[in-house]
Amino acid sequence: MSTREGTGIVLGPNRYGKAESRVVRIVRDTTRHEIHDLNVSTSLYGDFAAAHTDGDQSQVLPTDTQKNTVFAFAKRHGVASPEDYAIALGTRLLEATPAAKGAVVQVEEYAWDRIPVNGFGHDHAFVRRGGEVRTAVVEVTSAGPSVTSGLKDLVVLKSTGSEFKGFLRDEYTTLPDADDRILATALRVDWHHRDGARPDWSTTYESVRALLLETFATTYSRALQETLYAMGRAVLTAHEDITRIAFSAPNKHHFLVDLEPFGLDNPGEVFIAADRPYGLIEAEVVREGTA
Amino acid sequence: MSTREGTGIVLGPNRYGKAESRVVRIVRDTTRHEIHDLNVSTSLYGDFAAAHTDGDQSQVLPTDTQKNTVFAFAKRHGVASPEDYAIALGTRLLEATPAAKGAVVQVEEYAWDRIPVNGFGHDHAFVRRGGEVRTAVVEVTSAGPSVTSGLKDLVVLKSTGSEFKGFLRDEYTTLPDADDRILATALRVDWHHRDGARPDWSTTYESVRALLLETFATTYSRALQETLYAMGRAVLTAHEDITRIAFSAPNKHHFLVDLEPFGLDNPGEVFIAADRPYGLIEAEVVREGTA
Amino acid sequence: MSTREGTGIVLGPNRYGKAESRVVRIVRDTTRHEIHDLNVSTSLYGDFAAAHTDGDQSQVLPTDTQKNTVFAFAKRHGVASPEDYAIALGTRLLEATPAAKGAVVQVEEYAWDRIPVNGFGHDHAFVRRGGEVRTAVVEVTSAGPSVTSGLKDLVVLKSTGSEFKGFLRDEYTTLPDADDRILATALRVDWHHRDGARPDWSTTYESVRALLLETFATTYSRALQETLYAMGRAVLTAHEDITRIAFSAPNKHHFLVDLEPFGLDNPGEVFIAADRPYGLIEAEVVREGTA
Amino acid sequence: MSTREGTGIVLGPNRYGKAESRVVRIVRDTTRHEIHDLNVSTSLYGDFAAAHTDGDQSQVLPTDTQKNTVFAFAKRHGVASPEDYAIALGTRLLEATPAAKGAVVQVEEYAWDRIPVNGFGHDHAFVRRGGEVRTAVVEVTSAGPSVTSGLKDLVVLKSTGSEFKGFLRDEYTTLPDADDRILATALRVDWHHRDGARPDWSTTYESVRALLLETFATTYSRALQETLYAMGRAVLTAHEDITRIAFSAPNKHHFLVDLEPFGLDNPGEVFIAADRPYGLIEAEVVREGTA
Repeated sequence: MSTREGTGIVLGPNRYGKAESRVVRIVRDTTRHEIHDLNVSTSLYGDFAAAHTDGDQSQVLPTDTQKNTVFAFAKRHGVASPEDYAIALGTRLLEATPAAKGAVVQVEEYAWDRIPVNGFGHDHAFVRRGGEVRTAVVEVTSAGPSVTSGLKDLVVLKSTGSEFKGFLRDEYTTLPDADDRILATALRVDWHHRDGARPDWSTTYESVRALLLETFATTYSRALQETLYAMGRAVLTAHEDITRIAFSAPNKHHFLVDLEPFGLDNPGEVFIAADRPYGLIEAEVVREGTA
Repeated sequence: MSTREGTGIVLGPNRYGKAESRVVRIVRDTTRHEIHDLNVSTSLYGDFAAAHTDGDQSQVLPTDTQKNTVFAFAKRHGVASPEDYAIALGTRLLEATPAAKGAVVQVEEYAWDRIPVNGFGHDHAFVRRGGEVRTAVVEVTSAGPSVTSGLKDLVVLKSTGSEFKGFLRDEYTTLPDADDRILATALRVDWHHRDGARPDWSTTYESVRALLLETFATTYSRALQETLYAMGRAVLTAHEDITRIAFSAPNKHHFLVDLEPFGLDNPGEVFIAADRPYGLIEAEVVREGTA
Repeated sequence: MSTREGTGIVLGPNRYGKAESRVVRIVRDTTRHEIHDLNVSTSLYGDFAAAHTDGDQSQVLPTDTQKNTVFAFAKRHGVASPEDYAIALGTRLLEATPAAKGAVVQVEEYAWDRIPVNGFGHDHAFVRRGGEVRTAVVEVTSAGPSVTSGLKDLVVLKSTGSEFKGFLRDEYTTLPDADDRILATALRVDWHHRDGARPDWSTTYESVRALLLETFATTYSRALQETLYAMGRAVLTAHEDITRIAFSAPNKHHFLVDLEPFGLDNPGEVFIAADRPYGLIEAEVVREGTA
Repeated sequence: MSTREGTGIVLGPNRYGKAESRVVRIVRDTTRHEIHDLNVSTSLYGDFAAAHTDGDQSQVLPTDTQKNTVFAFAKRHGVASPEDYAIALGTRLLEATPAAKGAVVQVEEYAWDRIPVNGFGHDHAFVRRGGEVRTAVVEVTSAGPSVTSGLKDLVVLKSTGSEFKGFLRDEYTTLPDADDRILATALRVDWHHRDGARPDWSTTYESVRALLLETFATTYSRALQETLYAMGRAVLTAHEDITRIAFSAPNKHHFLVDLEPFGLDNPGEVFIAADRPYGLIEAEVVREGTA
């Protein structure tokens, strides 16, 4: 905290960095290229008060330099996985900035598939996969890196096996019990690794993603809350080094359309997918005694 | 055209309809459900002048009714393919509206995959695929339906096998010749079927999509224009009933990052993916003597 | 058109250019700066078949050069108005490209206001106004420039003075007559100027915008169609040099919320603003005998 | 926290609610209507473990009920200001839900102006203003409401009076000192009111907004950090009941275009507005000894 004498008005928490550097790294050591397509954001926090209070930049590593480092490390270190790359990058930024107490690196990775030609994936032609985005957030301090892996925009839907009933009612409640409804959401999930853990990040990612999907598919749902909790338990049970997992899940409502005026029944067949409003469920599942 | 006497100011071309009805159709005839996820827009054109000039709605089928028909036909007719559904829907809307000369139905379809559980796709749990969106535009007149199939947001990239050189130069030209560059685009493609053709729409869709991707992958590119033309030729050569194909393709620039200030070379390895501006190439390939 | 012998498959309509160059032009001839904030897209069409069929770029002015010209002309010519700038730019691009038959320049302008300080607008500090975006589309051919001015995202709403009733009904119609409803839309409007007309573009823009708003406000609406037609008539009546005007207007539905279950009446007071689906009305009003 | 015996895997922090209810409230007590256009999100947190672990909804007030309450309170309580409405709504939701420890209500308000007709604002016709969105976040607990007011998307720009130099340099630094550059940002600002304070929310909002703009305009900037700090100080100095203010400010880069290849100088006149990456500065200014 920094202040000007007598006012009691001081600088509070602050950080700065460069957001959304769009890095595309082609690995072309052989004729069979690989592609890594990233969106990288970096930030630094620490004692940068002079920049705010006195316009003194002498301790400020420019965001332009952060961006340069992002691209240079895509070459120097490589981007084998978002986590591995982010650890190296965050460590570097912290070292380069004496006033910084921490560096935070956020990475989004967009997946690409090889274009199939005669049944085989092409050497250097790719099609973007779409679907979920893989994410990583690494915070590096003098204690070392803290790694959170994740994904967002994983859109899933069950056409049956979901109910919602027996809920609290007040004078503004009009919702009837539902015995069989569509359950759909666009998952954002973040799982935190035990300090010092260095799993094969990509293998772990694929395993967590598969567990999330399988649990969503095979769990009868009495509420989105229950489904999320089951998904979190499945991941923490299978992965000892994951200490907690956080979900943000919009309940994407699908309303059954009333076709009776047109002489048609509608036993769970025709729905309108609504945009807004939507339910929003946020929950963490944690392993006791860990941080 | 309609006018008020003496002014010379008249109604010109006009149409109206309901845009973006989000229809989700679950087929649950067996326990193995299917899902069709559509965004449907309808419009009518014809002699609706009185609605504009006199506020007379007697010939206007409300857009709310159009929306009801969209949902009712998802049940009554089903949505086996966007094209098939759009033909039925457009035909109905035209019949229901004596003043209409034509009905246009636009459909976007979002693809879902079954969630894999123990190696098998689940019966009623799905994950949205992402990637390209399948499209169909059907115009129905007294002459019958005219069908255009397509896709959008098919994002493809070649990490080599693309050049751009020997171009026209003027005093504002600074671009050097490029012998080896990244070529990337997000394709919007629309292909028109011969009047009266009724192929298996979904089989044709998969074939065209595969041809587009394969041709993109295997054609050495001297410009995005050449690549599009080759893709179009491949489709028209393989599909006799397709009379023309139109491309809209942003040239998504990937600029090689200068790493020399950091003592690093960069032989086609690290790129920045730019947002704006972007090249934009639009071209049709047509079969002579057809409409 | 170009073909390869014997196939009957030929190149159809095509054009290419650079989209969305984001030009910010500061006029700083005095200490009282002015700002012009533009999004500029250019394209060329003509005989560019060789680029498609043979990969021959010798007649292709690169989109990179088009972008350079966009920025150079922001200095050389200035951007007093979108129309004036687009005419100069399009004329240049056509001249620089012998194979081109036409050049199309599209401009969006974002408005800024001076930040008020002690009641006066600041010399060099601005706040973006928001609201509608001013647009211009200029097509330049050997016959000279053809100018269309416009705006988009002008969002307007009437809380009364709008009905919709007496419409065509069929078996899918459930909508009741509405005697008093909210009418809301986000206008896209494009008006075309008589060839050779060179009005003060910005004065005309302000006049047309005011006429559109006033007519919307003061016209009792029996349908959005009628309102659009009245707006168009008002503009064409006041501006002799405008030959036609085109509207694209989503009917942004505001549904009255049923508060009766909560013991509350709702005489046109509480609405839910819906996202999708929405009505979409498109119409032109034209002056007879003009192009 | 809740657990299943022996696993050590437990439920962590969680909350749920209904996001983005789009409320439009027309005040029509006289023929001169008023409009309030809101986007309202509500959520509850507390002891909802049974819903997650056992699918027991008996303590869960449905998000559908929360939505109903949102609309009912727009009538019952009115929406004179976002803060006032959010306090009433949050208080109600907390009371209705015994298991809840807190209710959070977030409101965005979109401003509308009366359409000018003959120099006067129309009684019931409006045009959406655009520009910044007013926001409020109210958290209600047994201790009462905690109120944070704010705005987002306030886009400001200075065409001179901004430098950035004397910064820390390392081997990845290529940025030269800048003596005169464009400074532009899209502000998100949130200011927190002392507990129990009940100012005229809208008057305070207008005052804070004006102070932010004026300070931005009149402060010479040696970095965006310094400008934000000055803005925060100005607000806290003028408003004793505001205890802290938080800024999130993307540095929207405007790069000077090199026109020298075209024989043109460019003394701060022609810029390209970049999309990504962008600097991102986050900082709070706080009053010591307050919460």
